[in-house]
Amino acid sequence: MKRIYLDNGATTPTHPEALKAMEPLFTQKYGNPSSIHSFGQEAKVAVDSAREDVQKLINARSPEEIIFTSGGTEANNLAVIGAAMAGKKRGKHIITSKIEHHAVLHPCEYLEKELDFQVTYLPVDEKGRVHIDDFKGAIKEDTILASIMMANNEIGTLQPVKEFTVAARESDVVFHTDAVQVAGTMPLDVQELGVDMLSMSAHKFNGPNGVGALYLRKGVKVHPHMHGGGQENKLRGSTHNTPGIVGLGWVCRYARETMDEKVKHLEELRDMLIEGIEERIPETILNGPRRERLPGNVHFCFPYIEGEAILLNLDLKGIAASSGSACTSGSLAPSHVLLGIGRSHELAHGSLRLTLGIDNTQEDVEYVLQVLPEIVQKLRDMSPLYNK
Amino acid sequence: MKRIYLDNGATTPTHPEALKAMEPLFTQKYGNPSSIHSFGQEAKVAVDSAREDVQKLINARSPEEIIFTSGGTEANNLAVIGAAMAGKKRGKHIITSKIEHHAVLHPCEYLEKELDFQVTYLPVDEKGRVHIDDFKGAIKEDTILASIMMANNEIGTLQPVKEFTVAARESDVVFHTDAVQVAGTMPLDVQELGVDMLSMSAHKFNGPNGVGALYLRKGVKVHPHMHGGGQENKLRGSTHNTPGIVGLGWVCRYARETMDEKVKHLEELRDMLIEGIEERIPETILNGPRRERLPGNVHFCFPYIEGEAILLNLDLKGIAASSGSACTSGSLAPSHVLLGIGRSHELAHGSLRLTLGIDNTQEDVEYVLQVLPEIVQKLRDMSPLYNK
Repeated sequence: MKRIYLDNGATTPTHPEALKAMEPLFTQKYGNPSSIHSFGQEAKVAVDSAREDVQKLINARSPEEIIFTSGGTEANNLAVIGAAMAGKKRGKHIITSKIEHHAVLHPCEYLEKELDFQVTYLPVDEKGRVHIDDFKGAIKEDTILASIMMANNEIGTLQPVKEFTVAARESDVVFHTDAVQVAGTMPLDVQELGVDMLSMSAHKFNGPNGVGALYLRKGVKVHPHMHGGGQENKLRGSTHNTPGIVGLGWVCRYARETMDEKVKHLEELRDMLIEGIEERIPETILNGPRRERLPGNVHFCFPYIEGEAILLNLDLKGIAASSGSACTSGSLAPSHVLLGIGRSHELAHGSLRLTLGIDNTQEDVEYVLQVLPEIVQKLRDMSPLYNK
Repeated sequence: MKRIYLDNGATTPTHPEALKAMEPLFTQKYGNPSSIHSFGQEAKVAVDSAREDVQKLINARSPEEIIFTSGGTEANNLAVIGAAMAGKKRGKHIITSKIEHHAVLHPCEYLEKELDFQVTYLPVDEKGRVHIDDFKGAIKEDTILASIMMANNEIGTLQPVKEFTVAARESDVVFHTDAVQVAGTMPLDVQELGVDMLSMSAHKFNGPNGVGALYLRKGVKVHPHMHGGGQENKLRGSTHNTPGIVGLGWVCRYARETMDEKVKHLEELRDMLIEGIEERIPETILNGPRRERLPGNVHFCFPYIEGEAILLNLDLKGIAASSGSACTSGSLAPSHVLLGIGRSHELAHGSLRLTLGIDNTQEDVEYVLQVLPEIVQKLRDMSPLYNK
């Protein structure tokens, strides 16, 4: 059976060339980059070069502004908890949104519950957008940090981050954005955006698992989250994951070189999917905006049926998809993102996310458009909620 | 020039077979193990199987007691900060030793400075051993956690962990041990040891960088350190590093199968090195015990000269060594471990660590024994402190 992977929002295959670039770091240039001997220095050269590749992808001013981490979650923890702890003498109020990834929400909840911070969770509109007036209205005397994601991982909504950074700067609020779904998939310029911190993860754009980075603008203070050795300018203890870092560097270079065609390719397939689903399946609800969304993200609610049942049926047809975030799959609670944009519990349970990647083709989309309507109809016919 | 790697305490080459086992996870079985489709389930099977391999290496009761992390530092942070936060209502006193790795000391300092915990840093004797009487004497009404390393990463001293766990259990103190230098290199049995938590790291025993594990005895409570998705039984958010985890699993299996010969091989080379150095170089000071030390660890102070100068000269001869921990190299401060065992600042600056690995041979040792005495003598002849 043909297998079609449409869960690139959860993770992507590592590009074979990225793996090839990583291999010497496992078995030949295996030194610890903190060691002063030649094995260590070879590894350090590789790490430094990868740091420049990350820097260039997001147009940071200097490679020193890139802090390597074990992934997007750690980058978000370092940004949110690290900046909160570093800023707590100035104030203990933080602004975020209701539809952030749990890697931002849970650090915020930890700060509230264990460390007496106050967090404002901004609402979003029906498309998933945070409004600048809400953002400005939430800034208080003691606000030290705001964290609003660039693009939502479930419904793909892009946020007007630039508007927020202008307002944040005026009020001396450190601004972080979780760009895990954006980095490597859309053009990014941290200087143009005006963000103080930005999180990214290699495995979301065909790099390896287990490695990511935090952009930390020079002058912005954070406490380490991983306490240990003096690595990463004393901001992140732990021996460097040199093969992973080299893989991240490779895929940043690749993303830079292929960005325009990637965006075009994903957007074409995305729009084909969205239009095809709306044409072929009655009573569908597109979640997130039609255009200002991630180029590879398609997210629908199908009334009367369960998302899990759709997934299992798609899987039987060789199609890998998700109902929302992989990080919470298995949980029975409805998505906080779908509740955040006003969907009922019932509707939220009938969601499907299809996320495209660089390997997907028009034939993949056509196959989904052939198979999915039958599945939805079959499930609806079995549903007690459906009377047509 | 022949190159000899004698810095296996800092990091080791990844075994080519471990890399081979990892490769399909990058490019074929690349699903997110949290996803319910077949790609995800393939990855989950691989992660589950690796978890059993780790379990077996350390004789944990169940695979659920293994929490995958990004390495030893994260395992230590999760253990120390996680157990402190989970236990803080019972008390806020922690016991550790003066010669722990910074991945334990810095979390302790963070807890003291930012979260009002009190930490007792136990002294060690001249060989680097913590004494059970000191340990017992430090336990107070409000002691909730103790963390004493199994083996010191610089001078190789093995601690009588079993004595500590008995005392800790009597007083209801959670006991953690940093076994990063031991796991995969010496036999380990967490049930026999009686530890509640134990940290390990793949790259210290020929597994990949960027992955490790915390053994967490069933029933022991910790708060997550990485706040995010519900992975690892809600104790560690972040997408699984599946290739890394599979590499860790492979090397745990390999270590189990080859443990006896590995220990024998390392101890033979170690003792050859120690005896050879003492025979050929006058005025040497062996740090750590002669026998109850890590099988691959050799650590000397050479009076009158600088450790860095020895390293650079060894490197010119193709030999990779270190003066102590790689995590703090570049720092000018003398090693806290050497100060802890009573060495003067001056002596502490003249240290050399040679750490053996599975690839080292008798010829490697002979070459070092030929080259090192000349280097030490040359440097001493140049030293104003040396008058012979």
